[in-house]
Amino acid sequence: MSIGENTVYLIALAVSILAFAVSFYFYRWVGNQSSSNKRIAYVGDLIRNGANTFLRREYSILARFAGIIAILILIFLPEPIWAGKPVNNVIMAISYILGNVFSALAGKIGIEVATIANKKTAEAAKKGIKPAFLVGFRGGAVMGMAVVGASLFGVTLIYVLTKAYNPASAILGFSFGASSLALFAKAGGGIFTKTADISADLCGKVELGIPEDDPRNPAVIADNVGDNVGDVAGMGADLFDSNVASMAAALVMAVTLDKTAGGSSNIVMIFCYAALGLLSSIIGVLLAKMGENGDPTRALNSSTYTTTIIFAILTAGTTWAFNFKWEIWGATMIGLVVGVIIGLASDYFTNDNKNPVRNVAKASKSGPAFTIISGVSYGFLSVLPSMVGIAVSALLAYNICAGLGEGYAMFGISMAAMGMLSIVGMIISNDAYGPIVDNARGMAEMGDLGDDVLAITDELDSAGNTVKAVTKGFAIGAAGLTIIALLGAFMSEVNVVAKQKGLELLVGFDIINPVVFFGLIVGAAIPAVFSAMLMLGVDKNAQRMVAEIHRQFKEIAGLREGKEGVSPDYDKCIDIATTGALKELIPAGLMAIVTTVAVGFIGGVQAIGGFLTGNIVSGLLLALFMSNCGGLWDNAKKYVEAGNEGGKGSDTHKAAVVGDTVGDPFKDTAGPSINTQVTVVSLVSSIMAALFLTYNLFG
Amino acid sequence: MSIGENTVYLIALAVSILAFAVSFYFYRWVGNQSSSNKRIAYVGDLIRNGANTFLRREYSILARFAGIIAILILIFLPEPIWAGKPVNNVIMAISYILGNVFSALAGKIGIEVATIANKKTAEAAKKGIKPAFLVGFRGGAVMGMAVVGASLFGVTLIYVLTKAYNPASAILGFSFGASSLALFAKAGGGIFTKTADISADLCGKVELGIPEDDPRNPAVIADNVGDNVGDVAGMGADLFDSNVASMAAALVMAVTLDKTAGGSSNIVMIFCYAALGLLSSIIGVLLAKMGENGDPTRALNSSTYTTTIIFAILTAGTTWAFNFKWEIWGATMIGLVVGVIIGLASDYFTNDNKNPVRNVAKASKSGPAFTIISGVSYGFLSVLPSMVGIAVSALLAYNICAGLGEGYAMFGISMAAMGMLSIVGMIISNDAYGPIVDNARGMAEMGDLGDDVLAITDELDSAGNTVKAVTKGFAIGAAGLTIIALLGAFMSEVNVVAKQKGLELLVGFDIINPVVFFGLIVGAAIPAVFSAMLMLGVDKNAQRMVAEIHRQFKEIAGLREGKEGVSPDYDKCIDIATTGALKELIPAGLMAIVTTVAVGFIGGVQAIGGFLTGNIVSGLLLALFMSNCGGLWDNAKKYVEAGNEGGKGSDTHKAAVVGDTVGDPFKDTAGPSINTQVTVVSLVSSIMAALFLTYNLFG
Repeated sequence: MSIGENTVYLIALAVSILAFAVSFYFYRWVGNQSSSNKRIAYVGDLIRNGANTFLRREYSILARFAGIIAILILIFLPEPIWAGKPVNNVIMAISYILGNVFSALAGKIGIEVATIANKKTAEAAKKGIKPAFLVGFRGGAVMGMAVVGASLFGVTLIYVLTKAYNPASAILGFSFGASSLALFAKAGGGIFTKTADISADLCGKVELGIPEDDPRNPAVIADNVGDNVGDVAGMGADLFDSNVASMAAALVMAVTLDKTAGGSSNIVMIFCYAALGLLSSIIGVLLAKMGENGDPTRALNSSTYTTTIIFAILTAGTTWAFNFKWEIWGATMIGLVVGVIIGLASDYFTNDNKNPVRNVAKASKSGPAFTIISGVSYGFLSVLPSMVGIAVSALLAYNICAGLGEGYAMFGISMAAMGMLSIVGMIISNDAYGPIVDNARGMAEMGDLGDDVLAITDELDSAGNTVKAVTKGFAIGAAGLTIIALLGAFMSEVNVVAKQKGLELLVGFDIINPVVFFGLIVGAAIPAVFSAMLMLGVDKNAQRMVAEIHRQFKEIAGLREGKEGVSPDYDKCIDIATTGALKELIPAGLMAIVTTVAVGFIGGVQAIGGFLTGNIVSGLLLALFMSNCGGLWDNAKKYVEAGNEGGKGSDTHKAAVVGDTVGDPFKDTAGPSINTQVTVVSLVSSIMAALFLTYNLFG
Repeated sequence: MSIGENTVYLIALAVSILAFAVSFYFYRWVGNQSSSNKRIAYVGDLIRNGANTFLRREYSILARFAGIIAILILIFLPEPIWAGKPVNNVIMAISYILGNVFSALAGKIGIEVATIANKKTAEAAKKGIKPAFLVGFRGGAVMGMAVVGASLFGVTLIYVLTKAYNPASAILGFSFGASSLALFAKAGGGIFTKTADISADLCGKVELGIPEDDPRNPAVIADNVGDNVGDVAGMGADLFDSNVASMAAALVMAVTLDKTAGGSSNIVMIFCYAALGLLSSIIGVLLAKMGENGDPTRALNSSTYTTTIIFAILTAGTTWAFNFKWEIWGATMIGLVVGVIIGLASDYFTNDNKNPVRNVAKASKSGPAFTIISGVSYGFLSVLPSMVGIAVSALLAYNICAGLGEGYAMFGISMAAMGMLSIVGMIISNDAYGPIVDNARGMAEMGDLGDDVLAITDELDSAGNTVKAVTKGFAIGAAGLTIIALLGAFMSEVNVVAKQKGLELLVGFDIINPVVFFGLIVGAAIPAVFSAMLMLGVDKNAQRMVAEIHRQFKEIAGLREGKEGVSPDYDKCIDIATTGALKELIPAGLMAIVTTVAVGFIGGVQAIGGFLTGNIVSGLLLALFMSNCGGLWDNAKKYVEAGNEGGKGSDTHKAAVVGDTVGDPFKDTAGPSINTQVTVVSLVSSIMAALFLTYNLFG
């Protein structure tokens, strides 16, 4: 049996629409949950408005930025408008804008639901942990379904509309739009959230000894807004980007493969697998509920595993039914399995039941310096299993598929990346659950819902943190494979142009070639510089905000004592975080893009091959290091707070708080932004391939 | 005019012997300086005995380790003894042992003089800064001259004796001996010194508020011993290793080039340049003295620049006189110039007159977390100029020499590395000066020499720290170029074997080849894991030592109050540091070597090409990051202690001390050991090239 091309596109679109329907259904369901507490409604509105203010300002700046880029694309890409076919430029520019718009929409939807679900979860917690869990989870699922629905819908639509022209560059343009928006959303949101979080913690918990989320703290609303703009909108844009990029890499190669072989079997298979991945996530999300044991971590993890199994079965079935290539199914499964392994490795290094977290907590007894040294050490160790996992999965996927013919080996890697990302709908749902219940906890505190409710939201929050480690490992692993696949896509694009121009085809990038080596070393430095710029941004911003908090405590009479009717100026803090974040994100993003362009014009496509490789290698290293360090310190602090090694208020605890504070920009600002930076740079290279091939100094 | 081959060898040997003579002359000169203070003599003996105890125990363990490796070489390398020519195995095994012995001797000489020069410097400070400077500097020069003399002497001797047989593998064996000893000397010494330093600081300065080097502190002698075994013996072994490795890489390629072209012009040039480099350092060292202005930093820097200029002039002269290739002279000069630039960049990020240090000091006002975040950020930024410098110098050296014919391009890179290392005699002298005057400061404190003397030793010490940043940048840059050159040497070795066996010649390592990529990713993880193992070693060890110090203060009556006649049990602390360091260094070193062997047997020479590249890239990144972070925090603390941002005793100071403590294992344990780790791995690959080519799974 075989499946028609158009049938597959229709199925992909239908599944996307189903995802939107589920998303909408959950959105309504969450919105219809009861709420009565006035204080929570008030705080909820503050957070919602703060988040929307940030988003509005961010998007309006980004709109201008995207406009400029779109014009540049229109003129120069994929080839200067006077040299190539103008229709290609128009298609790429429009696709680029659509990539931005879809990604922005997904972020907006996430904020929209997260800022409702947080208060509903808080109030549901009054009824018990099971209903509260369901509200938090379904809130997250709104985001998960919307993001993956939008990415599949967008990619399918773009592909179908442009397949008669130049589908590869249209898809790359769309993906570049998604990733350039993600870069700013992730970096900007990351700076915002950590500015607020660090400042709130330092001034509140450490200096004044008032609890987290205490309404007297001027930064408390900004902190909660940050959870939404960083962890919800930023994370959504990030995974939208990875998901689109993995499809883009696979499609670009499949277009070439199918053209060579005739037919459209590879393209069909990509859309089929992508649709099945989303379908599996939809089923997983609909089935999710908390078991009788009432353990939220188990509920989250078991729905992930359910989704994984459903996906494996569905794809095996279709591969059998439609005579797809089993080798490629195998590559996809390798990706899926390795993703789980990487997730488990991240879990080992960040789980407070395991040695690393406990040893760091123990080391903290000797002071904060030891918290940092031991945490950094475990962070460095933690890169090993994930990097070996990625290396092995790339090697296996390549070797399994190499027998299918020329070009299939690299295509196999891209399918492994798609395999890892197949269950991304579920991953996002779990990930967005985290900030929702985190916010809910804050609201339960601010709304005085009592200790029982706090205990429930605490448990939900802790489950969110545990699951986050696994999903984050998954996301980094998938991004790692995706960018390796994008290297293949870049080569594929270069060769399309080379063939047209009658130039020698690119067969690879030789490390011994000094131009490649030059690119390699420069490329490796970029993620470090990028991280530094973001973290210095947080640092500068947090110092401003700390000064503002101190000012308010000094100048607003009665604030410190919690006098009735006295409340801090929350808006001022939100304003500082917003302004600072937007000011800091642009130079970091531009640095990455400009360096890529410079290296391309200096060393040509060979230098870019090295540059991307260096970028991937050091990007993976630093992203894993920083994410895991951050998670580890966070949980070490929680472990101490749970009464171990001296417990709350002890010197050990103070040391652990220092670790947590350092870890915050590691894990929530720099670490996860690095993936996006690498993806952006890879896509810039692909869409500028023709230019780099034609104009360069040393290539 | 041309120069005879044998004449050059004689000149090289003669210059080495001259260096030994200068070294011996300075040693006598330092020894003949007056000393009278009994307390200093007593403390000096404690330090000297402690250092010798450590060295004896370390060397006896390493002798067994080296014995095992030598037997393995004898049986298996360069080819299994039953498959190749047994004489090659014997030569390689003996060269390996000699490499170990020469390196160990250089370390021993360093300790021998440093533990005399420290007390002589302290006492000379009573007469003023100029005589004290000269004693410290000449003490360092003993080490500088001995190390470089030994390396040139050893390499020349080995080459001359084996040139009829298999000089390349003999030199590689010698270099591997030097670098495997350096790995352990650097890592073991690094763990020792930081265990002692951190524990002494934490218990003394932070907890009890007693001054640095206070004799009541049980760890104070161990701390001073650490300066010697880590910074003197370890650093000497490290630079001995780099120097030999850069000559080895150049020689291995030159052997092939000269064989192809007939004659020995490239070999002759290498020895000629190496001899001139040492000669320039000898002249520079002999001319060094403090100017009338009495500024020790200027005195140190100006002797470095003098050496640089002398070397440039001498090599230009001989290139002109003996018709050497100007292109290669050019490559050498590029190395030299870029070395200076990298040094200046390191200086910018670690100098307390510049913004980074001041901003970190300022950030410390908000607490230790900000010290760490801003320091890490600047550390990440600091990798950019150095990595771009290395990338550009490799690109330029390659392009300048590429026109000379096949194989010359990579040879050009090795000559750039030699150029950077040409003035290494001077660099080591400056570097060894640091721990000597640091020790002198401690002795002035313990010997109650008064505030005037302390002020002088403080100034000498501070100059040592400033210069260290420049020399460290130089050393990392040189190591970076050397290991790129070693990649060329590895290829050259593979092709020698491939030619013999009639296999296809290796033309390069294609990143798109999944086996190369597999090696690349795994190789990139190794420096991180290696650093983690060393730092966890320090961490564990320091925790044990802190417990011991607490025990002594608790159990030894009158110690805390400084009662007459009561002294702590210094030996116990030295013992803990020694045992721990030796216990921790073996697994880290073995991990690096075993992984290399595993990757080679899994993926063959292609995987090793990727592995070395990944190792170089992430090794450079992490070495620069950690060294610069450490230097920056150290100086930020000193900047605060000089009365800025609140000054000594303030909360800012406490935060800065946390940064300094974290930076200690970064800059003195992990950072500088990474170079050596990468060199070892490169050499293991080269000497096992034939095996990897013949036996592997996926290659």
